[in-house]
Amino acid sequence: MTKQEILARVDHTLLKPEARWQDIQKLCDEAVEYHTASICINPCYVRQAVEYLAGRVPVCTVIGFPLGATSTQTKLFEAKQALADGAEEFDMVINIGALKAGQLGYVEQEIRALKQAVGDKVLKVIVETCLLTEQEKETMCELVCSAGADFIKTSTGFSTGGATFADIALFARCVKGRCRIKAAGGIRTAEDMEEFIRLGADRLGTSSAIKILG
Amino acid sequence: MTKQEILARVDHTLLKPEARWQDIQKLCDEAVEYHTASICINPCYVRQAVEYLAGRVPVCTVIGFPLGATSTQTKLFEAKQALADGAEEFDMVINIGALKAGQLGYVEQEIRALKQAVGDKVLKVIVETCLLTEQEKETMCELVCSAGADFIKTSTGFSTGGATFADIALFARCVKGRCRIKAAGGIRTAEDMEEFIRLGADRLGTSSAIKILG
Repeated sequence: MTKQEILARVDHTLLKPEARWQDIQKLCDEAVEYHTASICINPCYVRQAVEYLAGRVPVCTVIGFPLGATSTQTKLFEAKQALADGAEEFDMVINIGALKAGQLGYVEQEIRALKQAVGDKVLKVIVETCLLTEQEKETMCELVCSAGADFIKTSTGFSTGGATFADIALFARCVKGRCRIKAAGGIRTAEDMEEFIRLGADRLGTSSAIKILG
Repeated sequence: MTKQEILARVDHTLLKPEARWQDIQKLCDEAVEYHTASICINPCYVRQAVEYLAGRVPVCTVIGFPLGATSTQTKLFEAKQALADGAEEFDMVINIGALKAGQLGYVEQEIRALKQAVGDKVLKVIVETCLLTEQEKETMCELVCSAGADFIKTSTGFSTGGATFADIALFARCVKGRCRIKAAGGIRTAEDMEEFIRLGADRLGTSSAIKILG
């Protein structure tokens, strides 16, 4: 796999709360130079980044991030504003407590509402695998697909763990091509990137891709 | 200082993303039994907790939490919904990247807008001290006071560090009684709780208070 083939699957990511606009600008410049799939940034920078990039690279943002414990209404408001600001991809975090309590209807409805709000734009659903049981991971594969989302995504990168090979294999086995897969969190070597892709990841979320491959 | 004097200053806190309603219910029951200042929970549970508590303990929630990197509009929407749901205290996270970039007007205006939205309810401003320089901490003391907020608060508990004695002393020295002070993050012994109060903290954010003092 060439460097460019890997980079084309990378959401070039900077979600640190202390990131300044000049840091986001550098991220944009790198994404343009190395042709990453997108840049992934916090909502407060979407409009500026969209204007700065002027269509050269799509802007991905995060919704209900990283805890997923805001209300559905707030997630919807946040997504609609990011859509109006020009975001083309939306990485939402599920309500993990609702999943743990077995409120699967709530979890699915929230995903469905978000997908409806973003229309033909890309919705990725972060399930935060490090906090889930194997059964809960399988359940989420079903719910993400049935709710019509575009991707299932492993991790926020802000919890106790990131993407694992085992979880990507589990996702690939369960979603059976009904949605795409994004591995994120703690991805820091070219070998890992290749292995995640080989196991079925269509997209990689990492802040290290250009440092490693650039 | 008696246990009850300490507990009366505690925001009894559960912000883990995997918390279920039944965990929040337990938190409510403990807060009622031990007379804490409030319970501090994620926005998705505010309405249920307000109904369940029926005025026995005030509900505090978090806004733009824990990264502070949502738009001002989203923070306002989130706060207004929590207000409608019955929250009485609002712990917002500042836009840390804007502070780092020197956009002090943005940071202050956002706090001012949130205070306007919650009216006579309590607004606490989380500055995430572990990410700030000494100069930035002092700047935030000025901005929090000039924007009319009720409290300056050290930490989210989700970043690289929590409250320190030195930071509470710095806050007390800088705000000079113009706003109150909340220490939060990593507070896990009764001795620490007393020392934070002695140094000037009016409120403590911790999930351990009842385990320790109950």
